This record gives sequence, structure tokens and C-alpha cells, in this order.
Amino acid sequence: MSNKVKRFILPEEEIPHYWYNIQAEMPNKPLPPIHPATKQPLKPEDLFPIFAEELCRQELNQTDPWIEIPEEVREMYKYYRSTPLVRAYGLEQALGTPAHIYFKNESVSPMGSHKLNSAIPQAYYCKKEGVTNVTTETGAGQWGAALSYAARLFGLEAAVYQVKISYEQKPYRRSIMQTYGAQVTPSPSMSTRAGKNILTKDPFHQGSLGTAISEAIELATTTPNCKYTLGSVLSHVSLHQTVIGLEAEKQMKMAGEYPDVVIACFGGGSNFSGIAFPFMRHTINEGKKTRFIAAEPNSCPKLTRGKFEYDFGDEAGYTPLLPMYTLGHNFRPANIHAGGLRYHGAGVIISQLLKDGFMKAVDIPQLETFEAGTLFARAEGIIPAPESSHAIAATIREALKCKETGEEKVILFNLSGHGLIDMAAYDQYIAGNLQNYSISDEELAASMKDADALNQ
Amino acid sequence: MSNKVKRFILPEEEIPHYWYNIQAEMPNKPLPPIHPATKQPLKPEDLFPIFAEELCRQELNQTDPWIEIPEEVREMYKYYRSTPLVRAYGLEQALGTPAHIYFKNESVSPMGSHKLNSAIPQAYYCKKEGVTNVTTETGAGQWGAALSYAARLFGLEAAVYQVKISYEQKPYRRSIMQTYGAQVTPSPSMSTRAGKNILTKDPFHQGSLGTAISEAIELATTTPNCKYTLGSVLSHVSLHQTVIGLEAEKQMKMAGEYPDVVIACFGGGSNFSGIAFPFMRHTINEGKKTRFIAAEPNSCPKLTRGKFEYDFGDEAGYTPLLPMYTLGHNFRPANIHAGGLRYHGAGVIISQLLKDGFMKAVDIPQLETFEAGTLFARAEGIIPAPESSHAIAATIREALKCKETGEEKVILFNLSGHGLIDMAAYDQYIAGNLQNYSISDEELAASMKDADALNQ
Repeated sequence: MSNKVKRFILPEEEIPHYWYNIQAEMPNKPLPPIHPATKQPLKPEDLFPIFAEELCRQELNQTDPWIEIPEEVREMYKYYRSTPLVRAYGLEQALGTPAHIYFKNESVSPMGSHKLNSAIPQAYYCKKEGVTNVTTETGAGQWGAALSYAARLFGLEAAVYQVKISYEQKPYRRSIMQTYGAQVTPSPSMSTRAGKNILTKDPFHQGSLGTAISEAIELATTTPNCKYTLGSVLSHVSLHQTVIGLEAEKQMKMAGEYPDVVIACFGGGSNFSGIAFPFMRHTINEGKKTRFIAAEPNSCPKLTRGKFEYDFGDEAGYTPLLPMYTLGHNFRPANIHAGGLRYHGAGVIISQLLKDGFMKAVDIPQLETFEAGTLFARAEGIIPAPESSHAIAATIREALKCKETGEEKVILFNLSGHGLIDMAAYDQYIAGNLQNYSISDEELAASMKDADALNQ
Repeated sequence: MSNKVKRFILPEEEIPHYWYNIQAEMPNKPLPPIHPATKQPLKPEDLFPIFAEELCRQELNQTDPWIEIPEEVREMYKYYRSTPLVRAYGLEQALGTPAHIYFKNESVSPMGSHKLNSAIPQAYYCKKEGVTNVTTETGAGQWGAALSYAARLFGLEAAVYQVKISYEQKPYRRSIMQTYGAQVTPSPSMSTRAGKNILTKDPFHQGSLGTAISEAIELATTTPNCKYTLGSVLSHVSLHQTVIGLEAEKQMKMAGEYPDVVIACFGGGSNFSGIAFPFMRHTINEGKKTRFIAAEPNSCPKLTRGKFEYDFGDEAGYTPLLPMYTLGHNFRPANIHAGGLRYHGAGVIISQLLKDGFMKAVDIPQLETFEAGTLFARAEGIIPAPESSHAIAATIREALKCKETGEEKVILFNLSGHGLIDMAAYDQYIAGNLQNYSISDEELAASMKDADALNQ
């Protein structure tokens, strides 16, 4: 932080009235999700038993580039939006880079992450359609906390399946969800058929987003008046998150710049889509030269080393078959602290965009992310979530390249959340007790077997 | 949260250029602090060995009502200020009160509390005067985290003594300070003479802000080029914190209202002074009828049950003698989770204002604070710090009175910090494992003995 510190905040009336639906403008539309039983392309009504109906329509909408944000949702956005766009002078100085680094600070929402941007509309549509109970999965707990609070806002009961390893690593996220009044169960659990099957095969299964999704879907489909909600991966979640990039676009204009590079961490794609898609529309429509970089853990490398195939979104195979980059739906991610990035697949929009060269991906080892996160904390004061530290690490790589070449590039990254609930991980890092994980091609091939079989 | 949600944020140019020094306008000035050896009123230079010189001058300035905020400090304020003023529609609705409840949300600073408002100028003045090392005490760790970061900003080394019970109850605040690069030692420790003396008398001493202050002062006065900094109690800290109330005053104007009641929690007085003094000047100068309420723990009741006497600010007796409401400098507060409120004294300005009837105090049992905090979290989404929950509990009491009388009073309280590092406390509350503490008059009289002797 130097004496040129500036942050950009939009006046309330500038908070977006529409979400941006990139599906409508992609040169190659995503391939259709497929019903696993009929093998037919999915229609919105196929999803009605699982999700609120309006969300199903948004999911498969490939025609309308702009979807109006309901007034009730927009009023609640105002409670914490716009989030600040910050020029990271402190980080620039610490790196000695000529690059101009900006970050969109989504960590200032009451939940500490961007997840509320989609939790609010999902709870809203559920309530509007007469739902009384919602259920979901959560990894690190950012999504679960957001959904728990959004449910409370609309008077819905919430049940959250939290990935077991995160439940144990980050007990306070559970406490947060409970403070909001949600029921929290570590997954895999004995409370669903899917969980029982997984535990029967492996009693020590540490859980993954894939197992938690299976359990939550099962609960939703077997409980009256209950719908499932998802915090990432799906196209309607990406849609809601575009509020991030739409604001950032206006804020970059306030700063008098346009990004050469846009960076976000990547788990299921929600925060990456949110910051990237509104800028990417100018690449699609006007040929603007911007590089979009998704930063994923090198221990969960679906974008950099996964296969583009039809695969299930969950461990048990309850979801439709999604055409996407995947590591196989029974891939078991290493126990990294970035719990929100421990997911095997990438979602259909991102996968198509990656295939078509609109974006690229980098993979980052755990220790590099913590080194980056600590440097950022000391330079900018905000302790980042381990997930967000992947974006910071990728940003630092780009900024150091600028230092070599002398280029004054404008880099924008999304600070998706703060790490105040992840201090145990920082403790381990400071004590030298964290490690990197590597995966061999053989391991990846093995975890792809079931997915490969689906594509025969 | 309803669909009328509104928050008020100031344009950057409206962030105050001056702090408000209430000492200059009080009808009865605070009595002078006294040098314990000479028994003479303190002069600024008596404090030079301990604090940066400019801070010593601010401490005893009873003439200038407005002190200019240095440009370098103001630039850093811009990084997180103005903090939002929020109309708490959600809480109003949950209580069914006709009162209009507003809160100033200081929890959005990167440190999660108001403490950075004074940490930045303190580190700034130290740096300007050639200091290389700073030291301080911290209870819950909010102040220690802020000072650690502010020190880092100005390239100073920081050493923090953290109250032992908080060090153990809230290990992640220690991790936060360490992430910023500070040295953290639980107090009482064996690293100072003061600490050794305390531990020799009682090897199981749990620490208090009084013990940690003694150790930090000792380190500062025995280390070359090292100054002590304090997070509360002193008049210059209150001065810096007035940026809160000065912003709130403008923001209340944006909302078209003026508070009938202003409420903050009370430990050493920093956040209370910050929100209250700018409004109190209209009471002093124009006779505005506003009630000011300090909310303290009923287990540490210096304002409601303490004595107005000269007393030390620390356990070992290293500070000047301060004329203030006190429970005795060796009072041992119960192990409540609101670590930032576990302090025996009230500071000289507040004590005079309380004596003169400009404000009143209420004392609140621990369980009521957690009940209030949980209600607030569910209504407004923000999990409050246990300290701030005292202000919320006092606000709820006032709002429920309005419900009885039907009065549409305007209540403003300061949300001094969030409770994301205090989830262990919420866990215990949810599990029914928290308790109240009561203190008998006999216990209070016993803890006053040493202070009484000083006043003979």
C-alpha cells in the first residue's frame, strides 16, 4: 500500500440490473447435457425435480444474452455490493513490477466470499416457487455459509453436506452455518444411500464435492418440497456471478484502464466465470485482445490435464451427463486446503471456451499459493482464502513476467474470498508443515476409467 | 433484511480531513494524569520515552478541537473507508420494533475491526520520528492484528504481547499477526521483569490487558529505538477513532436522520469514543438531546460499579496515574470471550464525561450478548465479535423499549468488528456451554485495595 491507494466503488444505481448470459453469444454453443437414462439432450423440465424451475430455464438458455436480476435480488445485492475494485499498489511495490494490478474484492460480503451472489437468487427462486427446504453441498464451506444465510433470509430450512476433510480442517465454517441455523452433515455420511455406498467401499473416504453433491441431490429428491442448490459448475451459477465482472468493467472504466489479463482461481468455475465472462464478451463480439487465465491446483488439474468428455457431476452418478473437461467423477483430490477447488469437472460453458481457445489454464502447487497469499496479506492487508491464493499466485507469475519485459500490463484478478476461517492452514504453512502433491499420468488415467466407459 | 435494505457510503473526498478532539470542548476538562514518582501533573515530554512524541502532544491537547489527519494517514484510510452505515431493517423486523436501527460497520476493514483507525496513525508517527520497532498489548487480538499490519505498512518491526487466555481461546488471531510478520508472546510471559513477577506470584495467571500492557511498556523502554503503542484507553486513541463518528454523522445526514441514542461496547473506550464524541459535540455545544450508552460486560463493570480514582493503567504500575473509573489495576476479569473488554479502567475523558452525566453505561451478561449476536447474524448476515455483541444487546434492549412505548426512536450503534475468529465461542454458545459470571461487592472492594491506597 503506498500513498496512491485507491479503491473504486459504484454508486448504488450502477449496480447491474441484468446478468450476462455468455451462452447466447458463444460462437460454439456448449454441447447439450444428456439424460443418463435416455441419452437424449436435456430439457429444462428434466431438471425440475432437482432445481427451482426458473433456474432450470436459465441453465439451458442459449438465446438471451441478458437476464434481468429480480428486484428482490437486486435489493439484497445492495446490502454488500458494489464490492470494491482495488488497485494493488502494495503488491506491485512488493514485486517491483511495472504491471498495474487490480483486484475485485469479493471478500467483503458478509459471508466473506462471492458465493452470496448466487445463493441469494437461488434461494429467492426457490421461495417464489413454494419450496420450503433447500439442500446443498459445500467444500471449504464458503458456499454452504452463503446458502445457509440466503435460506434464512427467505425463511427456508437449509441442510448442508460438507466435504468431510473440510468439515474437519475448518470446523468454524460449520459453526458459521450453524449460527445461521443450518443443519450440517459431513459427507460421505450414513444419512443417504449414496453416502452409505461410498462408505461401504471405503470407510475412510475423506469426501469430495462429488460425494457431497450426490448426498444433497438424494436428500432433495427424496424430501417433499425440497430443492437442491449448487454453488458452482452449473451455467446458472456462472450467470449470477457475472455481477462481479459487470461491476468490475464499470470500475475499471473509473480507473481509466482495461485489463490485458483477467485471472481467477478455478474449482467449478463460479468466480472465474463471474469476473471473466463480462470482459470476454468484448473478445467474442469485438475481438478485444484480453487473456483469461484460470488458476487451478496442480493436484486437481482438470483444465490442464483433464479430458473433454461426457461425465457425471457427482460421485454417485445422480446428475445429468455433462460435456466437460474432467478428471473422472470418482477422482479423489489430494487434501489441499483450497477445499473449494477440489472438484473433478469444469462445467459445460468453461469447457467449450477452453476448447475454443478463449481462455487458458495454469496449475499451481499448494506451497506457491501460500507463499503468494502471505505476500499479498503483508502487502495489501487482506488474508486471502487458499482458493483465491491460486489467482494471486498466477497474478504474481504474470506480474513478474512484466518485470522481465518491462511491460506495463493491466492485470485484473478476482479476490474471491478472505482466509480468516483458514488460519489453521496458514499456521501449518508458517510452521513448514504444508506440502505439494503431484499426480502421475497413470493415476489420472486410472481415475478416468469410469468416465471413459460412459463415452464408449 | 427486507427489500428496503440500504447502506450509505461516502464519496472518497468526504472522508474526514480532521479528527475531533473532544477534550478541547468539554465543560469540565479531564483531571491531569499524574507522574507516579513526582506526583506532578504529566507533561507531554514525560511520555516521550514511551510513545511517539506527536502522540504525547495529542494525548494532553486540551485546546484544539480539530487535529488534522496527516495526508499519508488519510490516503491509507481511503483503502477501507468510508465504512458503510447500514440501516438494520432485518434486525428491526426480527424484533418487531418501530425504532430505526442503524449500525456503522467497522468490521469491513481488512483487519475486521475499527482498530486500524488508530494503528495507522500510531505507526505513521513512529516511523516519521525514526522509530524502528513497535510493541503493544492485545486482548482478543483485534488491536494486535491491526498494529502488526500497520507496522508492516511502514516497515516497522512489531512485537505483541497477547493476553494468555485470548492467546489460547483464539489461536487464529495469533496466526493472523504472525502472517503479517509480527512476534507474538502470550502474557504474562517470562520475557520481562513484570511478567516474571506476575508469574512468580501466580504461575497460573491467565493474563489481562493490564499484564500485557506492563510487558509491552517494559520492552519498549528497554529496547533501543522502540516505542510502545496502545489500542484503547488513551485520549489520542479516542481522537483517531473519531473518524468513525464523523463519517457516521455525514451518513446519518444522507439517511435523513439524527440519532436519539448512540451505543457502543466498552473495553478501554476506543470504539465508543469514536462513534460517540462527534455526536456528543452537538450535545455539548448545542444542547442536542442524544443519549450515549456504553455497554460493558457485567463481569468487568468499571463504568457501572467502578470507583472514580487515580489508578495505574497496567498491572505492574508502569503507566502514569490516570484519573478514571476503575476496578483496581490488579482486577482479574472473568474469562469471557469478549477479550477486548477485559480491562479494569476507563480512560480519563470518558470517566469525566460519565461523571458529568453526558453518557451512561449498562452492563450485560455474557449469555445475553451471544443471544443478541446470534439474532443479529441471522437478521443481518454478519457474525459480530463478542465485544460488539454487547452493543447489539444494548441496542436490542432499547429497541424493545420502543416496541413497548411505540416510539420511533433512531438508534445508532457501532459494529466494531466481526466474529469470524471467535467461532469457537459461538460453538460453545450453540452447545450450551457458555456461562454468565457475577461479581460480589466484596470482590470488587478487594480488587480496589491497591488503587485506594494510591489515593490516600
